[in-house]
Amino acid sequence: MTANLSALNPAGVRAHFRGDPEPRPTAGLAPGYAQANLIILPQEYAYDFLLFAQRNPQACPVLEVTEAGRRDLPFLAPDGDVARDFPLYRVYRDGVLQSEPRSVEHLWRSDLVSFLIGCSFSFEWALQRAGVPVRHIEENRNVPMYLTNIPCRSAGVFSGNMVVSMRPIPGRLVPLAVTTTARMPRVHGAPIHVGDPAAIGIADLGRPDFGDAVTVYPGELPVFWPCGVTPQAAVMQSRPGLAITHAPGHMLVCDVPNDALMG
Amino acid sequence: MTANLSALNPAGVRAHFRGDPEPRPTAGLAPGYAQANLIILPQEYAYDFLLFAQRNPQACPVLEVTEAGRRDLPFLAPDGDVARDFPLYRVYRDGVLQSEPRSVEHLWRSDLVSFLIGCSFSFEWALQRAGVPVRHIEENRNVPMYLTNIPCRSAGVFSGNMVVSMRPIPGRLVPLAVTTTARMPRVHGAPIHVGDPAAIGIADLGRPDFGDAVTVYPGELPVFWPCGVTPQAAVMQSRPGLAITHAPGHMLVCDVPNDALMG
Repeated sequence: MTANLSALNPAGVRAHFRGDPEPRPTAGLAPGYAQANLIILPQEYAYDFLLFAQRNPQACPVLEVTEAGRRDLPFLAPDGDVARDFPLYRVYRDGVLQSEPRSVEHLWRSDLVSFLIGCSFSFEWALQRAGVPVRHIEENRNVPMYLTNIPCRSAGVFSGNMVVSMRPIPGRLVPLAVTTTARMPRVHGAPIHVGDPAAIGIADLGRPDFGDAVTVYPGELPVFWPCGVTPQAAVMQSRPGLAITHAPGHMLVCDVPNDALMG
Repeated sequence: MTANLSALNPAGVRAHFRGDPEPRPTAGLAPGYAQANLIILPQEYAYDFLLFAQRNPQACPVLEVTEAGRRDLPFLAPDGDVARDFPLYRVYRDGVLQSEPRSVEHLWRSDLVSFLIGCSFSFEWALQRAGVPVRHIEENRNVPMYLTNIPCRSAGVFSGNMVVSMRPIPGRLVPLAVTTTARMPRVHGAPIHVGDPAAIGIADLGRPDFGDAVTVYPGELPVFWPCGVTPQAAVMQSRPGLAITHAPGHMLVCDVPNDALMG
């Protein structure tokens, strides 16, 4: 069945992963449709987290929040199940990674609230469609991500610095990369910084804090976008009793077209 | 009367210059209102020029074109007179500067067509309002402008390379500078290039081809916008029998608010 995965529509992809197969990253599946990141928290943390998102919308663009205890996703995937439709999950207790299961149905509780967060896959699709090269896709690597010295605005128990993703862009295409992604604020939107990495506390582009390094060619500038790892890092720092996320690269494939996320 | 010039509205500024006073640049007059560049050509060149503008809209954003022989400006300044309301004109014959009169009423012919072209003053106003510093204004100089190796698309007798203006922008403000100016395509719009000057054929930022050099501080990137000098340069290169332009910095102050030029 995996052989045909790339031919499936979003509902088909979700049904596939709900069947508990060998997990795989979702990059490239159901092209043209949004994918979403996940953070599940007990309700006691929900307000603080939503406030953190409200105060840091570029790093934490919330696409949907479930009702406490509910697993359905009326906006992103009406027939979806947030506890089973991601290919792989990560379970943290007191901020420490405990397990990496294919489903979290067995952990479900009536007080869990799921936050679905916009993913840069959507704007990378828009960049490529606009003719802007995306280096880590060209080089078949994960996007390089870096901790910065840019503080997020704190909210309740959540605080931390911004994590950014970096894509090298030729100088002549920087304006197009900015305007293209600026039209998609629900999936991180415009970059936060262009050029000198040291100015935002990044010592060495060749050594990302997450993901893989990529080639930067002469005439290219490093362009930095707020990254969805930011809220995960902020959450883990506060060591909540329970937190569930997707495993990196293993997203929810949604019914919402990327085009519908254009501003 | 000049002492009170800064208190006048656009119609008042135009009436002042129509009175044939000592000329002065229009920067800072009637703040919040658009100013326009001028190229007047005999009708035989009008189609080629309009086609050049259509093919190079970022460098040559046409705000208004008069009927042949007419001097009124229904869109930009309904009570205006294109032959008298600029503070200072330049008259070229066969591509050679002949005179710099305060009015071109005495040269008027029934076959002259006036092209009013958007001016970067409008987007600089938007940049400053958005909190993006504009260095040459801070340093009380003319904006630095450079010939590039970027070819314009030719049209009839008109061709040439793009002239760009440069503003140094801190890396963290480059995205805001791009999105702010991108919303104003009728006054040049988004930049054409960010970073390395050599990539677009500029050997030395400290030696602009027009205007004045400005300070570039550490952490700032040179950001290059298409410049209204581009069409002037393309026109002069083709040595038309007669061409009339405004003298640099001596624009038409229009009744159209900059806000009305936002996309």
